[in-house]
Amino acid sequence: MDNQFTNAERAEVLTAALPYIKKYNGKTVVIKYGGNAMINEQLKQQVMEDIVLLWLIGVKVVLVHGGGPEISETMKKLGKQAVFLDGLRVTDKETVDIVQMVLAGKINKTLVNLIQMKGGHAVGISGIDGGIIEAKMKNEALGYVGEITKVRTQPITDLLEKNYIPVVSTVASDRQGNTYNINGDTAAAFLAGALGAERLIMMTDIAGILMDKDDPSTLIGNITVSEARKLYENNVISGGMIPKVDCCIEALEHGVNNVVIMDGRIPHSILMELLTDEGAGTMVMKG
Amino acid sequence: MDNQFTNAERAEVLTAALPYIKKYNGKTVVIKYGGNAMINEQLKQQVMEDIVLLWLIGVKVVLVHGGGPEISETMKKLGKQAVFLDGLRVTDKETVDIVQMVLAGKINKTLVNLIQMKGGHAVGISGIDGGIIEAKMKNEALGYVGEITKVRTQPITDLLEKNYIPVVSTVASDRQGNTYNINGDTAAAFLAGALGAERLIMMTDIAGILMDKDDPSTLIGNITVSEARKLYENNVISGGMIPKVDCCIEALEHGVNNVVIMDGRIPHSILMELLTDEGAGTMVMKG
Amino acid sequence: MDNQFTNAERAEVLTAALPYIKKYNGKTVVIKYGGNAMINEQLKQQVMEDIVLLWLIGVKVVLVHGGGPEISETMKKLGKQAVFLDGLRVTDKETVDIVQMVLAGKINKTLVNLIQMKGGHAVGISGIDGGIIEAKMKNEALGYVGEITKVRTQPITDLLEKNYIPVVSTVASDRQGNTYNINGDTAAAFLAGALGAERLIMMTDIAGILMDKDDPSTLIGNITVSEARKLYENNVISGGMIPKVDCCIEALEHGVNNVVIMDGRIPHSILMELLTDEGAGTMVMKG
Amino acid sequence: MDNQFTNAERAEVLTAALPYIKKYNGKTVVIKYGGNAMINEQLKQQVMEDIVLLWLIGVKVVLVHGGGPEISETMKKLGKQAVFLDGLRVTDKETVDIVQMVLAGKINKTLVNLIQMKGGHAVGISGIDGGIIEAKMKNEALGYVGEITKVRTQPITDLLEKNYIPVVSTVASDRQGNTYNINGDTAAAFLAGALGAERLIMMTDIAGILMDKDDPSTLIGNITVSEARKLYENNVISGGMIPKVDCCIEALEHGVNNVVIMDGRIPHSILMELLTDEGAGTMVMKG
Amino acid sequence: MDNQFTNAERAEVLTAALPYIKKYNGKTVVIKYGGNAMINEQLKQQVMEDIVLLWLIGVKVVLVHGGGPEISETMKKLGKQAVFLDGLRVTDKETVDIVQMVLAGKINKTLVNLIQMKGGHAVGISGIDGGIIEAKMKNEALGYVGEITKVRTQPITDLLEKNYIPVVSTVASDRQGNTYNINGDTAAAFLAGALGAERLIMMTDIAGILMDKDDPSTLIGNITVSEARKLYENNVISGGMIPKVDCCIEALEHGVNNVVIMDGRIPHSILMELLTDEGAGTMVMKG
Amino acid sequence: MDNQFTNAERAEVLTAALPYIKKYNGKTVVIKYGGNAMINEQLKQQVMEDIVLLWLIGVKVVLVHGGGPEISETMKKLGKQAVFLDGLRVTDKETVDIVQMVLAGKINKTLVNLIQMKGGHAVGISGIDGGIIEAKMKNEALGYVGEITKVRTQPITDLLEKNYIPVVSTVASDRQGNTYNINGDTAAAFLAGALGAERLIMMTDIAGILMDKDDPSTLIGNITVSEARKLYENNVISGGMIPKVDCCIEALEHGVNNVVIMDGRIPHSILMELLTDEGAGTMVMKG
Repeated sequence: MDNQFTNAERAEVLTAALPYIKKYNGKTVVIKYGGNAMINEQLKQQVMEDIVLLWLIGVKVVLVHGGGPEISETMKKLGKQAVFLDGLRVTDKETVDIVQMVLAGKINKTLVNLIQMKGGHAVGISGIDGGIIEAKMKNEALGYVGEITKVRTQPITDLLEKNYIPVVSTVASDRQGNTYNINGDTAAAFLAGALGAERLIMMTDIAGILMDKDDPSTLIGNITVSEARKLYENNVISGGMIPKVDCCIEALEHGVNNVVIMDGRIPHSILMELLTDEGAGTMVMKG
Repeated sequence: MDNQFTNAERAEVLTAALPYIKKYNGKTVVIKYGGNAMINEQLKQQVMEDIVLLWLIGVKVVLVHGGGPEISETMKKLGKQAVFLDGLRVTDKETVDIVQMVLAGKINKTLVNLIQMKGGHAVGISGIDGGIIEAKMKNEALGYVGEITKVRTQPITDLLEKNYIPVVSTVASDRQGNTYNINGDTAAAFLAGALGAERLIMMTDIAGILMDKDDPSTLIGNITVSEARKLYENNVISGGMIPKVDCCIEALEHGVNNVVIMDGRIPHSILMELLTDEGAGTMVMKG
Repeated sequence: MDNQFTNAERAEVLTAALPYIKKYNGKTVVIKYGGNAMINEQLKQQVMEDIVLLWLIGVKVVLVHGGGPEISETMKKLGKQAVFLDGLRVTDKETVDIVQMVLAGKINKTLVNLIQMKGGHAVGISGIDGGIIEAKMKNEALGYVGEITKVRTQPITDLLEKNYIPVVSTVASDRQGNTYNINGDTAAAFLAGALGAERLIMMTDIAGILMDKDDPSTLIGNITVSEARKLYENNVISGGMIPKVDCCIEALEHGVNNVVIMDGRIPHSILMELLTDEGAGTMVMKG
Repeated sequence: MDNQFTNAERAEVLTAALPYIKKYNGKTVVIKYGGNAMINEQLKQQVMEDIVLLWLIGVKVVLVHGGGPEISETMKKLGKQAVFLDGLRVTDKETVDIVQMVLAGKINKTLVNLIQMKGGHAVGISGIDGGIIEAKMKNEALGYVGEITKVRTQPITDLLEKNYIPVVSTVASDRQGNTYNINGDTAAAFLAGALGAERLIMMTDIAGILMDKDDPSTLIGNITVSEARKLYENNVISGGMIPKVDCCIEALEHGVNNVVIMDGRIPHSILMELLTDEGAGTMVMKG
Repeated sequence: MDNQFTNAERAEVLTAALPYIKKYNGKTVVIKYGGNAMINEQLKQQVMEDIVLLWLIGVKVVLVHGGGPEISETMKKLGKQAVFLDGLRVTDKETVDIVQMVLAGKINKTLVNLIQMKGGHAVGISGIDGGIIEAKMKNEALGYVGEITKVRTQPITDLLEKNYIPVVSTVASDRQGNTYNINGDTAAAFLAGALGAERLIMMTDIAGILMDKDDPSTLIGNITVSEARKLYENNVISGGMIPKVDCCIEALEHGVNNVVIMDGRIPHSILMELLTDEGAGTMVMKG
Repeated sequence: MDNQFTNAERAEVLTAALPYIKKYNGKTVVIKYGGNAMINEQLKQQVMEDIVLLWLIGVKVVLVHGGGPEISETMKKLGKQAVFLDGLRVTDKETVDIVQMVLAGKINKTLVNLIQMKGGHAVGISGIDGGIIEAKMKNEALGYVGEITKVRTQPITDLLEKNYIPVVSTVASDRQGNTYNINGDTAAAFLAGALGAERLIMMTDIAGILMDKDDPSTLIGNITVSEARKLYENNVISGGMIPKVDCCIEALEHGVNNVVIMDGRIPHSILMELLTDEGAGTMVMKG
């Protein structure tokens, strides 16, 4: 399919990307990677290509990943029964061990491996390494679900300085050494804030914020925090969208310049967002 | 028990360690950690304390760990049948995935967490991160059991330079992105060699090389490579000891100054080896 | 015309450039800029865009420029009669002053200005600055036409290290302070060699080396030095092409990895050459 | 003439310079070079010697030069008619191109060449390079006569850090890429201020500020800004002296420690000013 | 005596020191060395061992020494009569020369030599070197007894940065080049304050501050500045203890974190203070 | 006397020094300071001025000093009887202590103080500090007269890097901690050689090498090592001159570029030698 472009057309497209490359050169961009873009093998390959491209043109990319359905799958294989409390999964010691194993052992290293294959240099770490994320128990009944109490970005900036792409699993520990499962979106928002990132990109399985959630043509391109808050009130932002938008607002308050909720199902959506004039999904801005 | 010493006695012991501290200050020491020292919780705590102490007094410690019985245990839980070929475990794709998960996800992060709790700064990585270990298939019938083809120490020295203790899981990948299980002793020997380490410490469940394997009083304190080779011939070194001594010789040939096979079952054996005048286990030297 | 591409197409093109970006990242590329690409205003804008793009994606670009017809034009305006000897222009003191003024004052600063406008950081220098090029008189009858005797790349690498694009006018001086006009192709070849450049790009007004100089379809894509030498013998390479190919060979002998004779009349030919799989013009390689 | 001194006398003179060398060691001194010191060949040689000496003893010298009569001369040769409006030269596009050519091409490189011949390391740049000076049109009727809107000293400090003497031509550009002729004294004052220079030296063809402009014995050695302002009122400072003193005041207000208006017609006046106890010309100080 | 400990005991003691090593790693500790610890040869050896140990485990040690009885002894040998005024020694020019000679020549180099023998890297300097301490005459009748007017820590931090143990003699000079004898405790307090030291240790010949100066069992372990001031009033702190405690308070006011008055007669008291949980002597703290 | 020169003359002299300043800029020059230049107060002031001047113009000066008559004087005052063996002074433990005290305590700090007063930055050290000079006993009967066995220049280059003038006393120690008196000329030669100095200057109380030692007009300006060796044979070089010339040859063999035996009795002889075209004394060169 690539052959449909002439060299002249290619050169033209590259040149058109010039102002965007200039804009992000040397800046930190945190990408929260999850959902379908993580399950579909072809999309996964493309996301990794996009990340290596950004890295090569001088963007400091930090990849924060969740676990997707692999955690549930492994739990099932291990005969571990899922228990829910008010709709939330109860995470006992055994469960958090499985989460750690799948996130930091399986998914993390698979992503690092893919980035290396595409020519990037990646080092996979977790919130435990170098004490990046400190957490505490949120709710005793839910067990080892962590609430972030402190973020130390030094190990991440050390890796960026040595020109690696840090790939971060969202498990953390408390001062006693207990480990916790941390919500990926929240972790990405905290890290982006603490890093003073230029942009946080949240990859999801939806097009962005829709005025009518059943009509993709009602996509909101840009929205300020105060506008978003109004949409909470009249239920335009509802259900699973609420914690996602909450994270966006939190990241903005912690110092990120802007946040984008992006449809990870579209091929190369990261590049489209960062290096073209149209962008993708909904951008949430201060104000 | 600590209270049995007076302050004066403590000061005396610390002072006696002076020449050893001087000797290892700024030097790289690779520790292959495995066996009982990894299973017994108290021993594990002590090993981590020793490592943090070495790190604080200026030794560049690299911790390479194996998987011990946790891999087998997790495989069993996952209902994965172990298949053997000529006594060697057949490692299919599913098995290597479990190995990766247990090593890089469970054990690696648990060790990192312990070091952080003891006050050290650790970052856990694997042979996949930053392309540290490249491997290829050893034997098609055995599956994803890797033979090391290339070692890139840059990511490890980058972490040492930033004053972290690198904790390394011995999984690797080939140029096509396939992942392999790597023998821990071999990986430690290769890394120590490539790093030009001052010393490689192999923690085992035996006292060292014994002239009579049933009599601990026949422990050989020092041995040269050529002497060791003679002990192969007259079967003093035999069975599981052979690959271990092979690794020692390999490390020496790759540039490590000396290698110690050490009894990990003795509390604080690392400190005893490095910071006292008696040492522990058998030291294998060039010559 | 840019709007003819969808965002998805753009992303696809950018991704296709990934391996080329990887290849030139951190490498030095010397571009000899001259001919029509320097006269046609639109082409000039595009060349500068290409250079800024390369600079942003981490290529260390050194731009060496000639004077084109502006020298003759200014001489004519100044009422300076051109004198020729065996077809070569006699360069008296007054003429070399005009050359210096036009090259280092007019063209150099115009190029620097354009690069700055496109968002790059450029510093314009000449062979005189920091003693970059030392020369001597080639032939007394021809006057101040210089033959290069020494190249000092330090000022160029100092500027590259500070992340500027050095734009170099090809005037030089001898140890007595006399200034000389230096052939642009030769200067570019010497500088590329001394810098150990990954690639030297010679922009010309021809398609490259043609087997039949009247038939563009006979373009030779790749050629080794020894093959080129054969083409001298049977007059395929002849006339004005001879000194150009001589320069290519000289650059290769001085350590440049490969040299491309490229058609500067094609828009964005530099990007096409460096960032797509087809390339442009004729590549001359060692061997 | 040099032989008139004994070695003992030489040593004595060198020692007497000690406190002055100490004072300027590591400090930035901006020299505005123009007038007769630029036309007389012997004076020019001496100024360059002085600059190289200062550079060798650790002064960070920045040389800002004007164009002197060479611009007019070249314009005349090019048959370009000078047009005046209220006594000021109208600078059309063609004129500013000639200015750029003469300043950045002829004079700049000639000075760089001389410094190199004397053993210094110089790099010649202009206000266009690296965007050092941004300007806008002052008065539409006068054409491309620039008013400084922004100064970026980074390229100058980058060159100083790499131990070069920056030689600066006072042409500049606006954001649209138009180029402007900038008054040399004003440019020197702005650059000295932005660099936080220890001293700005303005070389002129007069002895300094005279109480009676026809009597050199009435030279004012030191004057504060407020005293100078009084001399404006009673016409002691008048005519061409006004813009010069204005520049001095502006430089002081921008952070320069002190400014000297110096007679460039006296051999080695720079050394006399900086390295002896008498000084030369009139020093304008804050207050 | 060393052989009384088993290796296991040694390892245990080393491990117990872990939290203290962690605490002082990278911190600056100023040790004022004097009294019996300086006269008794065995104690001297032990103090130097302690210092080298601290240096090896990453403490930035600055050793400030007084002259003890060696000054008086040398004066006596030189037939120099001691003259006293209100109980204070009159220091004429000849006397201050002897002080300088003994402190900076004899004692300083002897200490440096001992540290080098123990494996440390030391450079011995005085308050004169690099202008570290500027002083003035305190009281004309007393002669060259100096009062500190300025402290320049740059030479000390330069040596620390190059990983040397600076050993400092407390002689100083004024701007006219006169030299002065400086009280060692005062100099140590000033230097510790200017260096922002983590701790100042004052080695003395007493156990610390005693509630009853004749009963060692009444040793005060910790005391705040305000508590100390009360003890002045009711004469618990009296006699020679007053200037010592004054120095402690001065150091705390200049930014030192805490100060310890320590019994230098106890072997390895420095290690006991810094690396065990009991400490030694009296710690004076802010508040 | 200084006022006899006009400013113009001063400037002329400074300019004439230009090529010499250029030559020594950034180079290491070791000056062995002793003899009359050390006793006469005015000469001493001038030598220090010269050294500060050299330091300011970028020469890396290392000052090595002997003890002159102050050692004998102090010994006499201390009632210490000088004992000679075959004309050489017997140096017992007490004597070497006095030597150390006078050299490292008295003379060293006095010189450092003078340099600081003249505006230089100096740090005074000895061969003991940082283990710069290791020595052994030369001859048991002579006692603590040291023969150099090892030179470690690191502490000196560390001080030069931090821009201090190292002032070095020639006492040293062996591995057992015994201290030795080292011949100043020999120490200077060893240090200059190990530092790869551009020049070693030996200040003496003679004019240089004379063909007829009673006729100053027979001064040899330049001499090669082989020529010097011939002068040994025919007794032109004899007596106290022999060890001095031996040192020169030794320094040349250790890598110093050239060595000058210079008359320290002439004011500012160092400046005359380094910064004028005549030089002073006899230069010994390789060959």
